[in-house]
Amino acid sequence: MNLLFKALADPTRRRILQLLRRGDLTAGEIADQFPISRPSISHHLNLLKQAGLVQDERRGQHIVYSLNTTVFQEVLTWLAGLMAMEEKENGDG
Amino acid sequence: MNLLFKALADPTRRRILQLLRRGDLTAGEIADQFPISRPSISHHLNLLKQAGLVQDERRGQHIVYSLNTTVFQEVLTWLAGLMAMEEKENGDG
Repeated sequence: MNLLFKALADPTRRRILQLLRRGDLTAGEIADQFPISRPSISHHLNLLKQAGLVQDERRGQHIVYSLNTTVFQEVLTWLAGLMAMEEKENGDG
Repeated sequence: MNLLFKALADPTRRRILQLLRRGDLTAGEIADQFPISRPSISHHLNLLKQAGLVQDERRGQHIVYSLNTTVFQEVLTWLAGLMAMEEKENGDG
């Protein structure tokens, strides 16, 4: 969870996730969308991968990145849990 | 969003949020639940407050903390948006 929220606490990494929601991309295709160096993009992709938010897969000469929606679902469930308890509060003793 | 995810990237702060979902608490009541110093708890509460995840309110001699579910809702909406687009992907050209 720590890695996960740390990975989300950066605007470039959140923007990468938003690009990937439209479809899988190579590191090069992702880098083309940003005015920052390829090594920086690689660093961001690695952090997203360590957090489990993206996965990579070799296709021919390229490494293709995609969103790992399972992990998003876990965060959603955790956040929704916090809010649900808050609403239930009056019903319990 | 950066502050928000940074605030969530710490187990003590996530645990504080989980305590608060059961009801409002003073800093002292929160501190009693952790084997760490009160100044540390104050620091964590300040970060949660800066991120908008909790709000504080003076009641008599005490400052009482509560969850700010509006901000949780914003994170939920953002995450759900990422996942929804992923599912819609096949329908667009």
